[in-house]
Amino acid sequence: MTPSKEEISNYFRSLQDEICVSLEKADGKAKFVEDKWTREGGGGGRTRVLENGNVIEKGAVNFSEVHGKLSDKMVAALGMDTADFYATGVSLIQHPQNPMVPIVHMNVRYFELGNGKYWFGGGIDLTPHYVNKDDAKFFHTSLKNVCDQFDASYYTTFKEWADNYFFIKHRNETRGIGGIFFDKLAEDAVHTKQNRFDFVKAIGNFFSLMYTALMKKNQDLPYGDNEKQWQLLRRGRYVEFNLVYDLGTKFGLETDGRIESILLSLPKTAGWEYNVVPKEGSKEFETIELLKKGVDWVGLE
Amino acid sequence: MTPSKEEISNYFRSLQDEICVSLEKADGKAKFVEDKWTREGGGGGRTRVLENGNVIEKGAVNFSEVHGKLSDKMVAALGMDTADFYATGVSLIQHPQNPMVPIVHMNVRYFELGNGKYWFGGGIDLTPHYVNKDDAKFFHTSLKNVCDQFDASYYTTFKEWADNYFFIKHRNETRGIGGIFFDKLAEDAVHTKQNRFDFVKAIGNFFSLMYTALMKKNQDLPYGDNEKQWQLLRRGRYVEFNLVYDLGTKFGLETDGRIESILLSLPKTAGWEYNVVPKEGSKEFETIELLKKGVDWVGLE
Repeated sequence: MTPSKEEISNYFRSLQDEICVSLEKADGKAKFVEDKWTREGGGGGRTRVLENGNVIEKGAVNFSEVHGKLSDKMVAALGMDTADFYATGVSLIQHPQNPMVPIVHMNVRYFELGNGKYWFGGGIDLTPHYVNKDDAKFFHTSLKNVCDQFDASYYTTFKEWADNYFFIKHRNETRGIGGIFFDKLAEDAVHTKQNRFDFVKAIGNFFSLMYTALMKKNQDLPYGDNEKQWQLLRRGRYVEFNLVYDLGTKFGLETDGRIESILLSLPKTAGWEYNVVPKEGSKEFETIELLKKGVDWVGLE
Repeated sequence: MTPSKEEISNYFRSLQDEICVSLEKADGKAKFVEDKWTREGGGGGRTRVLENGNVIEKGAVNFSEVHGKLSDKMVAALGMDTADFYATGVSLIQHPQNPMVPIVHMNVRYFELGNGKYWFGGGIDLTPHYVNKDDAKFFHTSLKNVCDQFDASYYTTFKEWADNYFFIKHRNETRGIGGIFFDKLAEDAVHTKQNRFDFVKAIGNFFSLMYTALMKKNQDLPYGDNEKQWQLLRRGRYVEFNLVYDLGTKFGLETDGRIESILLSLPKTAGWEYNVVPKEGSKEFETIELLKKGVDWVGLE
């Protein structure tokens, strides 16, 4: 079986390094501070946090490689015939200062079980406080280009998956403009393990160029109190999604994961106001109108 | 069977009125704004919100009286032999401006099913940003006095229930200093329905005097940036509890409740910072040390 879990984990480790360097350079001020941690049951990670930068208000890029035994409850819930697991990956989230710069999230991960089963999973999605159609089209088109190099069906399938996953049901809103989400990718009749891994690497490597471009393009756009207030509300929605629906967060909270690493996805500040209904025709209204499933961002005029 | 659901609901309606008047008077600036709403399946409510007051930054006092049929899923989940339900109650939450004034929450409610089964439920709990022992003792002692008028076991039982309910498992912290929590109170060998109702009324009537006293005592205490920052973090914990654990919130989100009323419990602003560890001996440290189950607030020296 190739590539090995060591090779995959080494890639994730180097991906974390590359992304931190790129983000620090693009931010121009703040640096990531690293916390190394070990997990009682086996393995550990490197949590890296950047705070109060020029562009990034609060950002995290986390690497972990953990292994051990799943609880009996978990084994039963997952219908597994083994308790031994290995998991490694990178997850990141960036909350920018300027409301005109989108929030971004990416996760790439690999699981392997004691019985030899393995799979890749992950996703990347963008959450603009204000949807800029050019940026949205750029993001989705670039993402589709990466996907198309591996499988003509990837983008469509994984984009739909993201629309359904990053959905705030109680608000009937998507979290942002989506992106891709995928899970349980293993070898099959069409794809080798190496091929799946190459896809995951391509997504990982895609991040820095894409996001630093969006930082540069938008970081100096003007904004005022109104936009900062709207940013707080959109961050509030982000908090709602992460605490109510996000499976990674739920899994972490329920399995006594490292809380400070898990909840790094939450913004430095967020807000809630009663019954805010944006005026028709306003930028806020336009944004809400676009937070829907099934928008064809690539084909947007 | 006495009292009737109409009598109970009328009490809750008048309780909402009384509390709003008391809070407005104690705040001295802002007024509650009312939104009347109706529920498609039957009934409705009066959501009342006060924003940007002298003392209260964001407060809500909600009354509702709803009825209809529970979904098949819900009927199965609750193991019920009827789908017809009736529910009425008041729930409130106040997020103060000054970090020295505690957040407060209260809920009193009555359920009745098509098969004649009924029960009362509710609770009241205090969440100081900084635990003040005198205030905590005052709150719990007054609460115990109310409980003791009805049943010598109420306070101890319901206080323990609150400690267990208002608990943020993933932080290993209680939400605040607790209070009481109770549910499924119906008539039994010792209590009549009237007696249970009188207890619920006593709790409802206890609120205004207790909380306006705490407002007055603390609203002019000095604070600075450090205390405001700590308030944001404590509000972040409040958000975590409400979105991850609170059964009322979960029930509301899952059953397509009125989202704007349900999420009124969330503060105007909240915050998250990475790995904040208060210095030993600081006010923040003292507070964390007291956010534990089983503290004997009444017997506190």
